[in-house]
Amino acid sequence: MTDTLSALLDPRSIAIVGASENAARIGGRPLRYLRESGFKGAIYPVNPNRDNVQGFTAYPSIASLPATPDVAILAVPAAATVEAVRECAERGVSSAIVFSAGFAETSEEGRAMQNEIADIAREAGMRVLGPNCLGVFNARANYYGTFSAILDTGLIEPGPVSVVSQSGAYGSHITHLARQRGLGISHWVTTGNECDIDVAEALRWVVDQDGVNVVMAYAEGIRNRDAFIDALETARRRETAIVFMKVGRSEVGAHAVSSHTAALAGSDAVFDAVLKQYGVHRAHTTAEQLDIAYAASRGIFPKTGRLGIFTLSGGFGIQMADDAADAGLDVAPMPETAQGELKEILPYASPVNPVDATAQALTELPVMTRFISTMLEKGGYDMFTGIFGSGPASPTFGPMLRKALEDAVSDKDDVIKCLTMSAPAEVMRSYEEKGFLVYEDGTALTHALGALVRFRQNFDLAKAADVAPASPAPADIPARAITEHEAKSILTKAGISFTPERLVTPEADPGPVADGLGYPLVMKISSPDLPHKTEVGGVALSLKTADEVRTAMSAMLARVRAKAPDARIEGVILTPMISGGVETIAGTFTDPTMGPVVMFGLGGVFVEVLKDVTFRVAPFDKAEAHRMIREIRGFAMLEGVRGAPPADLDALADLLSRLSIFAHVHAEQIDSIDLNPVLALPKGRGAVPLDALIVAAGAEHHKAVA
Amino acid sequence: MTDTLSALLDPRSIAIVGASENAARIGGRPLRYLRESGFKGAIYPVNPNRDNVQGFTAYPSIASLPATPDVAILAVPAAATVEAVRECAERGVSSAIVFSAGFAETSEEGRAMQNEIADIAREAGMRVLGPNCLGVFNARANYYGTFSAILDTGLIEPGPVSVVSQSGAYGSHITHLARQRGLGISHWVTTGNECDIDVAEALRWVVDQDGVNVVMAYAEGIRNRDAFIDALETARRRETAIVFMKVGRSEVGAHAVSSHTAALAGSDAVFDAVLKQYGVHRAHTTAEQLDIAYAASRGIFPKTGRLGIFTLSGGFGIQMADDAADAGLDVAPMPETAQGELKEILPYASPVNPVDATAQALTELPVMTRFISTMLEKGGYDMFTGIFGSGPASPTFGPMLRKALEDAVSDKDDVIKCLTMSAPAEVMRSYEEKGFLVYEDGTALTHALGALVRFRQNFDLAKAADVAPASPAPADIPARAITEHEAKSILTKAGISFTPERLVTPEADPGPVADGLGYPLVMKISSPDLPHKTEVGGVALSLKTADEVRTAMSAMLARVRAKAPDARIEGVILTPMISGGVETIAGTFTDPTMGPVVMFGLGGVFVEVLKDVTFRVAPFDKAEAHRMIREIRGFAMLEGVRGAPPADLDALADLLSRLSIFAHVHAEQIDSIDLNPVLALPKGRGAVPLDALIVAAGAEHHKAVA
Repeated sequence: MTDTLSALLDPRSIAIVGASENAARIGGRPLRYLRESGFKGAIYPVNPNRDNVQGFTAYPSIASLPATPDVAILAVPAAATVEAVRECAERGVSSAIVFSAGFAETSEEGRAMQNEIADIAREAGMRVLGPNCLGVFNARANYYGTFSAILDTGLIEPGPVSVVSQSGAYGSHITHLARQRGLGISHWVTTGNECDIDVAEALRWVVDQDGVNVVMAYAEGIRNRDAFIDALETARRRETAIVFMKVGRSEVGAHAVSSHTAALAGSDAVFDAVLKQYGVHRAHTTAEQLDIAYAASRGIFPKTGRLGIFTLSGGFGIQMADDAADAGLDVAPMPETAQGELKEILPYASPVNPVDATAQALTELPVMTRFISTMLEKGGYDMFTGIFGSGPASPTFGPMLRKALEDAVSDKDDVIKCLTMSAPAEVMRSYEEKGFLVYEDGTALTHALGALVRFRQNFDLAKAADVAPASPAPADIPARAITEHEAKSILTKAGISFTPERLVTPEADPGPVADGLGYPLVMKISSPDLPHKTEVGGVALSLKTADEVRTAMSAMLARVRAKAPDARIEGVILTPMISGGVETIAGTFTDPTMGPVVMFGLGGVFVEVLKDVTFRVAPFDKAEAHRMIREIRGFAMLEGVRGAPPADLDALADLLSRLSIFAHVHAEQIDSIDLNPVLALPKGRGAVPLDALIVAAGAEHHKAVA
Repeated sequence: MTDTLSALLDPRSIAIVGASENAARIGGRPLRYLRESGFKGAIYPVNPNRDNVQGFTAYPSIASLPATPDVAILAVPAAATVEAVRECAERGVSSAIVFSAGFAETSEEGRAMQNEIADIAREAGMRVLGPNCLGVFNARANYYGTFSAILDTGLIEPGPVSVVSQSGAYGSHITHLARQRGLGISHWVTTGNECDIDVAEALRWVVDQDGVNVVMAYAEGIRNRDAFIDALETARRRETAIVFMKVGRSEVGAHAVSSHTAALAGSDAVFDAVLKQYGVHRAHTTAEQLDIAYAASRGIFPKTGRLGIFTLSGGFGIQMADDAADAGLDVAPMPETAQGELKEILPYASPVNPVDATAQALTELPVMTRFISTMLEKGGYDMFTGIFGSGPASPTFGPMLRKALEDAVSDKDDVIKCLTMSAPAEVMRSYEEKGFLVYEDGTALTHALGALVRFRQNFDLAKAADVAPASPAPADIPARAITEHEAKSILTKAGISFTPERLVTPEADPGPVADGLGYPLVMKISSPDLPHKTEVGGVALSLKTADEVRTAMSAMLARVRAKAPDARIEGVILTPMISGGVETIAGTFTDPTMGPVVMFGLGGVFVEVLKDVTFRVAPFDKAEAHRMIREIRGFAMLEGVRGAPPADLDALADLLSRLSIFAHVHAEQIDSIDLNPVLALPKGRGAVPLDALIVAAGAEHHKAVA
């Protein structure tokens, strides 16, 4: 992947077109920020009316600059933007940032201007951020190419967090909150209308930077699917956590998206599946996004979910144990011997976990220190939290308490140590400096710890990824209606197993073929014009002799010809009838943004009433397919209920992975595939699709029913 | 209900046993708070070593007090408490508060002391709060009978909120947070070990006080079921919102409950159902509890969920629309004509809902005012919110913005008006004074608004409650194993309909009975010793002639006698076989805390794999049963899927309500009832249980299978 974003996000020289002497104006703010930050590279204000702007030598035009800048910040009105972009392109500027609104989000005229900008840039090989964006900053490089008002109260310090946001307002808001929380932010990119660079590509660049432990992202949709998947894979490999706010999940929300920046929102369910597939945490609230980014900012992701809880009040301990269970954490009891030690120190204590030292420990702080250090040394916990309420806020008692806690945790760097408290920010910061994560709310804390554990699991998946089955040689997919028989032949070559199947032409005697296959048999009409065979009486089950097959075939041909006189009839197909197992469904469809997506679910009421299905973008390996299968709410059905044997999950996973690879390889030729039902037979006996339908791209199924 | 709690919670005179001159000690704090608050009634410190404590005349003992106090606060160690309680009882004190820990929560000796306290009090007719509690306050009466340290930084002002908490630490914490949020608290009761008064009874008293709009409650379990239900019914009738934190929902949490104050936690699922049944909001986080109490504190509960959203940034609007959808709110579009008016004011605006006036409205505040007043006047919204980020925090711009908002909303008192902002507390308070609800987080806001709508719906249910079917005359329930035939006879008298059924003794000819019933028939073995008939081959289906019935009966009797030689065989029962409809299950069981509980679910995979069942405490009316049925995830099955007709929901609701009344009336005699399956037939054709099992209290079903 060629890096064309470093000029934009880590430039050596910057031009500001529309630079203003007034540091409160859009054209004045970036210059002010760059001046205050002490940016080391060249700064070229462009302003035809002044020789000097905010102390920098000004130039009348892009063409007149003494050198070609890496980035040009365009702080001019919409009407002047196209011309400014053209001048940048002519000068050979690497990248441009367009602040102005008034483009695709407001009118058709605006959309036309935006398209013109994109065209000019593409032809010149110049990259464009925006229009209608708040720009970027790279705090490590003292580079603040934005007019966001959050910098009015001080520049953002660099740190282990980065922000990529389609919405400038959201990006500013979350950054304001992060700063209040004491978090430093290294990179900050807002993409606005995304006429060229989208959130995916910006994310791809950011996760490749060293020292970024977590990225907070916001998008209404994604345009560049491949960059997005590449970014998520890179983040997983580099162990960078991503906490994503994707809006537009509700109907009204999605409608508002389309009237906002006109993003290709795609299906929210598919987007959600992609995030899950790559171990991205999808935040549903701003507070959650921040709480999890805060936890991940240390770059420590625990190996297990074992959490030790220390409390001075039983009620708080119970509440946190509940929260921890909700978050998927393991509130494992202390070892028996360690419990005994705690009981000796304080007979009233509850030493299991939560460990409740009662209010007594507050009056005898050395007891508290011994309790906590025993938990850390002997509990086997990867995470520890203490619940402290407003105690740390006390001016007299607080410092003693902090000392007692510090003594307890010194030299325990491998454990994630947390506290909950209600205290002023400076008190919380003082604990953070000693290595604690500090939360006001216990629920938010446990939820964030649960996310850390899942991040670790997902990072480890990148290492453990299966060798996927080799991609099949691309098949020749006819761009027309495809019969079931053809579909099965094509998919068989992709490694998907069906029952053996023979086509019998209308004039032939089916007897010998039937005898060869064995009984009982299923017979189905074969016609490219009849994808829904039952509607025309084109399916016969449980045929047990050659004579039954002959009779059924004559009757079926007559029935179908009567109901669908225009349908082209190739004959009937015969295949052994199998039964037992669990009915599932599998299929693929093409998401407008994400491309081929595989769907899996249980048949019957599970899919019809409960919509119990799950998705993955193609392609994926068998291990991922196993995880997919286990997401189904009715998964217990596949483990065997009412004495039924467990299903062949491995065969099912193999089928789903192969299907995903096939759909990926033929993304251009195929719109959708239906395998419905797929019979998941008992373990060792396979997973067998009983029907197959491939809809070729652009092909329409003509209904030939009279 | 006799009010025995007013002496405790609104006393005219107070004794403090163990009163201390040191205002930082447990025996000194309440005296200090009462002194500072200016409590109007008599205050009697009891201290044998001093004549005067903190300026009040002190007395050597309870017996020596010049008058009998309404309440005695016992601030003495555990070892001295029993004697102090005895002295109070002898003096005829109405109620005592026991602060000390060291009772049932720590040891068997402690439990014995606690029981002694309870015994003494019961005999004397004295009420006891605690032990191991933080006491109470009634801010309206300047009465602060607590040693909670949260009063160190100032007394709590009275207001529309009250707090009832088993845990003193939790009660203090939530009150500390409520004060930070600007909420006044009128009543505050912490119940600790609950040797006498529990959360239920305290809640019952609090919801009966005027001017309490919302109660924040915390419990690990409930002891007094009837007081609890009475409290919830009273709150609903008086339109008082309850926001409940019930901990111990996880396995570890429940275990920690039992090692904490030894509450009868009961089944969390049943507790959850009770809260739902009575329209109580169950909070899962402390932040949520506070956010909802804050919204409800105004005592305005909207008639519909219509929410108008105003934003200056599309992204925030989309996010809030998503949140509103999650919260069950209706982000209804503005009327077309009103949209036109907004478009005329600002062509770039998105006038639908969310209404996005873009950042333009910030530079032209009169535009914003016109937008918002148009939304309020013409949108038909019961709730309005504006999204403002950090704008209101600006010292220069903030006041102008506040003016513009105030102008927009003046005279719109019937609409709940909200704002989100990130601003210092004093700025938020200034908006609250103008009638706005102010939140930092939009998700928290919409979630709280959703709760307000549900509170209103539930308050209205109290008015609309069905006339429940008349309670049946109590039946005679034998305290032994009961046959299916007996069970059906008993339940028939309770108004539950079965198919007609005849018992045929082993020696009789079933032919005439069968002919009389009509065919096809079902035959089942009848024996008090064989509750599980299929296990012994005791069920035969689809019998179509008298001869088939005779043959089946002989075979069944032989089969059952072989398999269960010791079982008492009464004969077989015959009943017409019905089919079609949807399989459901209904039943009752006795919760250790809540008494008879009715369960309902769909049969088959729904109950076995998905555990898709729902609960209600008995008794309840048909309307409540209708709501119960609709809670099932697979409810669509009853509306008709795959072309099936909709089920007879009214008959099903009638059955569930009658079952609940029957279980309630016979709570002492019956442990459980199973109606499995209940066939929900198509609309108009009824809901028919095909089997019935009643387990009498104390009776055991002996398995007679060999």
